[in-house]
Amino acid sequence: MTRIFNDPAVFAEEALQGFCELHPNQVRQVDGGAVRRHRPAQPKVAVIPGGGSGHYPAFAGLIGPGFADGAVVGNIFTSPSAQQAYSVARAAESGGGVVFTYGNYAGDVMNFGLATERLAAEGIRVENVIVTDDIASAAAGEVDKRRGIAGDFTVFKVMGAAAEAGAGFDDVVRLGRKANSLTRTMGAAFAGCTFPGADTPLFTVADGQMGLGLGIHGEPGLHDTELPSAAELARELVGRVLAEAPVEGGSRLAVILNGLGSTKHEELFVLWRTVSALLREAGHTLVLPEVGELVTSLDMAGVSLTVTWLDDELEQLWAAPAETPAFRRGSLAGAAAAGGESTDAAEAAPDEAQASAAPVPASSEESRRFAQHCMSALETARLTLHEAESRLGDMDAIAGDGDHGRGMVRGIDAAFDAAVLALDNGAGAGTMLATAGDAWAAKAGGTSGVLWGGGLRAAGESLGDEAAPSPAGLVAAAQAFTNRILTLGKAEAGDKTLVDALLPLVRTLVDATGNGAAPQAAWHEAARAAASAAEATAAFIPKKGRARPLAEKSIGTPDPGATSLAMVAAAVVDRFTTTNAQTK
Amino acid sequence: MTRIFNDPAVFAEEALQGFCELHPNQVRQVDGGAVRRHRPAQPKVAVIPGGGSGHYPAFAGLIGPGFADGAVVGNIFTSPSAQQAYSVARAAESGGGVVFTYGNYAGDVMNFGLATERLAAEGIRVENVIVTDDIASAAAGEVDKRRGIAGDFTVFKVMGAAAEAGAGFDDVVRLGRKANSLTRTMGAAFAGCTFPGADTPLFTVADGQMGLGLGIHGEPGLHDTELPSAAELARELVGRVLAEAPVEGGSRLAVILNGLGSTKHEELFVLWRTVSALLREAGHTLVLPEVGELVTSLDMAGVSLTVTWLDDELEQLWAAPAETPAFRRGSLAGAAAAGGESTDAAEAAPDEAQASAAPVPASSEESRRFAQHCMSALETARLTLHEAESRLGDMDAIAGDGDHGRGMVRGIDAAFDAAVLALDNGAGAGTMLATAGDAWAAKAGGTSGVLWGGGLRAAGESLGDEAAPSPAGLVAAAQAFTNRILTLGKAEAGDKTLVDALLPLVRTLVDATGNGAAPQAAWHEAARAAASAAEATAAFIPKKGRARPLAEKSIGTPDPGATSLAMVAAAVVDRFTTTNAQTK
Repeated sequence: MTRIFNDPAVFAEEALQGFCELHPNQVRQVDGGAVRRHRPAQPKVAVIPGGGSGHYPAFAGLIGPGFADGAVVGNIFTSPSAQQAYSVARAAESGGGVVFTYGNYAGDVMNFGLATERLAAEGIRVENVIVTDDIASAAAGEVDKRRGIAGDFTVFKVMGAAAEAGAGFDDVVRLGRKANSLTRTMGAAFAGCTFPGADTPLFTVADGQMGLGLGIHGEPGLHDTELPSAAELARELVGRVLAEAPVEGGSRLAVILNGLGSTKHEELFVLWRTVSALLREAGHTLVLPEVGELVTSLDMAGVSLTVTWLDDELEQLWAAPAETPAFRRGSLAGAAAAGGESTDAAEAAPDEAQASAAPVPASSEESRRFAQHCMSALETARLTLHEAESRLGDMDAIAGDGDHGRGMVRGIDAAFDAAVLALDNGAGAGTMLATAGDAWAAKAGGTSGVLWGGGLRAAGESLGDEAAPSPAGLVAAAQAFTNRILTLGKAEAGDKTLVDALLPLVRTLVDATGNGAAPQAAWHEAARAAASAAEATAAFIPKKGRARPLAEKSIGTPDPGATSLAMVAAAVVDRFTTTNAQTK
Repeated sequence: MTRIFNDPAVFAEEALQGFCELHPNQVRQVDGGAVRRHRPAQPKVAVIPGGGSGHYPAFAGLIGPGFADGAVVGNIFTSPSAQQAYSVARAAESGGGVVFTYGNYAGDVMNFGLATERLAAEGIRVENVIVTDDIASAAAGEVDKRRGIAGDFTVFKVMGAAAEAGAGFDDVVRLGRKANSLTRTMGAAFAGCTFPGADTPLFTVADGQMGLGLGIHGEPGLHDTELPSAAELARELVGRVLAEAPVEGGSRLAVILNGLGSTKHEELFVLWRTVSALLREAGHTLVLPEVGELVTSLDMAGVSLTVTWLDDELEQLWAAPAETPAFRRGSLAGAAAAGGESTDAAEAAPDEAQASAAPVPASSEESRRFAQHCMSALETARLTLHEAESRLGDMDAIAGDGDHGRGMVRGIDAAFDAAVLALDNGAGAGTMLATAGDAWAAKAGGTSGVLWGGGLRAAGESLGDEAAPSPAGLVAAAQAFTNRILTLGKAEAGDKTLVDALLPLVRTLVDATGNGAAPQAAWHEAARAAASAAEATAAFIPKKGRARPLAEKSIGTPDPGATSLAMVAAAVVDRFTTTNAQTK
């Protein structure tokens, strides 16, 4: 269990603060994460890993010469927001471009993708290197569906060393992708982990059992099996990893035997005894193997074995010196003396708050009055989500990581606060909703955060700040909301996501309006359609868009994303049509 | 739970093997533990920490330049044997003498004490620096009864740095004792840890509770309390540690915030946020604080806060460079270049097996025949202890760490094997028993190992190899066995140890013999007295010899050490008198 915390909602922020407080000479906290205390004096490619919290030393523990330039730090097991990624990149960028690198999870891909667009639009060269080392998470033929786990460490290390040595932007990206293509990881979990403040673990493994290939957030693995002996476990892990040896792989290996949290060093050493023997028996040379906690999952019990097949250039980078709060290799004395560092450059880092502030566009009196109604709708959504938080969390814990309720609450709270501020500053309805959407995406993180945030911004842009919308204008805004979510999330009907509730809602709205229904009736009908569709997701078997089928137990449970969408729609439609009717 | 293991009985050995396999350039496995791969080329003081396994990185993880010269590695939570300490010291000694250093536990004090005697007898300068930082384990007026926990790290580090810098023997000892006198630790546990192969934890803390001051092997602490918030926990730990600030302490502190196993880095960072603020508010400067896992307890959940008040010389040593498998500070490049190292010296290390081998002294035919009866007695003891192993473990788990059964089995097995070998080599009864005792002490470790081993050796020496003993000779051997145990263990009647059964046994034996009872009757009476006395320990309240009163629940349970002694006595007396009678 996670037992040391204050307010669970700010656990990740407080952990980051404590971490930065502990290492003031190595890291500096910035909005969204942390960066090196000293910017390189010379332009260099900035290597910026990131992801949810709970995986220390991944990701902030790896900031320093020879490794990462900064780290984007999300909430626990939740993707950081695009705003966070943008902000860290701005603070770490030193003239050579930015390479974001992270494990392959939908929320991370979306959020880092959005930050990439924004940075690119501002003229910064930026690329994404996505880690897909977990061989248990999808078949060998679907490598791009595989998740990223402890192989993160090798891929980040290779890129960090390359960038430190002065490699160009394209080379850093090429080397990172090569390292990923030559890296395989197989994990096993013995027991789940518990979020701060939660009474029960996020998931469990039955006593005396082991979940082979279980993900670092409890994602479904290959199968459960009886807890093997250390020697048998070593054979299982080594056998499966070597069975996927890349065609171009040689005999020299970088190896990581990684503990997930409450599996301790002594146990890892017992396991390593056999793992190392088996790898050597198979004719391999082990280059600077690492045994310890490199990518953890709070207090989860479990291990993973990562192998990277090295060629000459990868081996040099794997062996290169590095010096971070959590990892040191060799000595950088020479490198530091040669490269030099500039504290002034660090102090001159742009203020992220300023970078994201923007003047409020002009708006009509009418739009500002309509914005008051939107404000009421947001307030209703907020009450609804606060009330439903724990129920949504419970639903999500069945198939996901149990954070949907908390994520939605964080999002709506941030959206509401931003909307209040925008309204005070004279924003029209469109700007107010767009700003609220940005805040939602920035503060909630995760997949739902980027989708709701993006949807609200699109709706706001569709509404504009000039007039109160006509009934058709409101339908157009709903369509804009939907289209943005479809584009961002790439989910389709039947994937068991919020899209399963959203599509029926909009379709019903458009059909009812086309059939001449009064706006109020059409919206009510649409909300009812969303509610039934959300309930129906309980019977769905997902078709695609996930690395592998959901756990069987999740099939009988409605999707929490579809449920929260339907709930918010019903509540807002009720309130919105009521207040609208009163003022008309 | 500890889940990765093969045979639980060899967990510690396999972990040590895996560890040494992983760091071949830094450490070398030797009988009893590990030493630096390269001996210093110049004579230096060898700083050798040690203790039970399960505390990684303590103790083997701290071997390397600027820190330890070697580490004595016992079984899990069990003191290493005197033979192990001797062997590691022999392998690490490089002309400057040996400083053993360890936490204040009875088994460690005895075993390192015996190794000290042996080394001193061989002309090696040797001292012991015993760490007593745990302020929860005894009152401030009884510092020498306090246990050693994470303060180990600071004390070892200071001595390691001093020795590396060329300090003389007396100076290293003085600095270690000064560091200990200025170090205070307060711990808290949230959940127990589980031995490899055990179904249940060694101890538990009720859900939602915290055991304040609980020891790293589950020893009783101050009291249980509701699980506080991180900020409250920080206030509790800081308040209690600062309340014991040494009179001579200044304002500069070395600080360790230590995780015990399944309490993770992110939690420690959240806690550190308040701990560091409180220490600074109290006017202190934090010098190179360490937050992480430095002295663990398998997968125990919990933390401890260690503060060392630094003066100028201690601060310099705390900040000095070090380079070990588990801990690096600064850079030793300069030091290594200046000091030089010699692989040849390491290769020339004495073979420990040879060092402990000795020719078998001459023996009479009669003594060798009597040795056959002793062999039968050992065999009986062995069967008895194997059968009782789990029951003795359960009894021990109530007041101790649950390893008494396993320790006794390891001991008798080793003693039996050694006795068989000695008999094959023509040893008489005295040498056979003495050799068996040595093997018991060497393999079992812990307190009971050194006591039984020492007692058997004393009995053997009393018997000699020249003749079969008279009834009076057997009584004298029993007295020698008892006296050795009293001398080694320093326990008295009523301390709830094996002495509580041993003293009545010998007293009854002597009295019955004096009253003219036949030897067989006297021995039976003595064994019965031991059995009743062992049972009576259930009603005892311990008077002394322990840092603090036993947990209340242990008062109604017989002492496992007294019980095993009585059981063995009864079984051996039965068998011995039977076989003796048959052959007479």
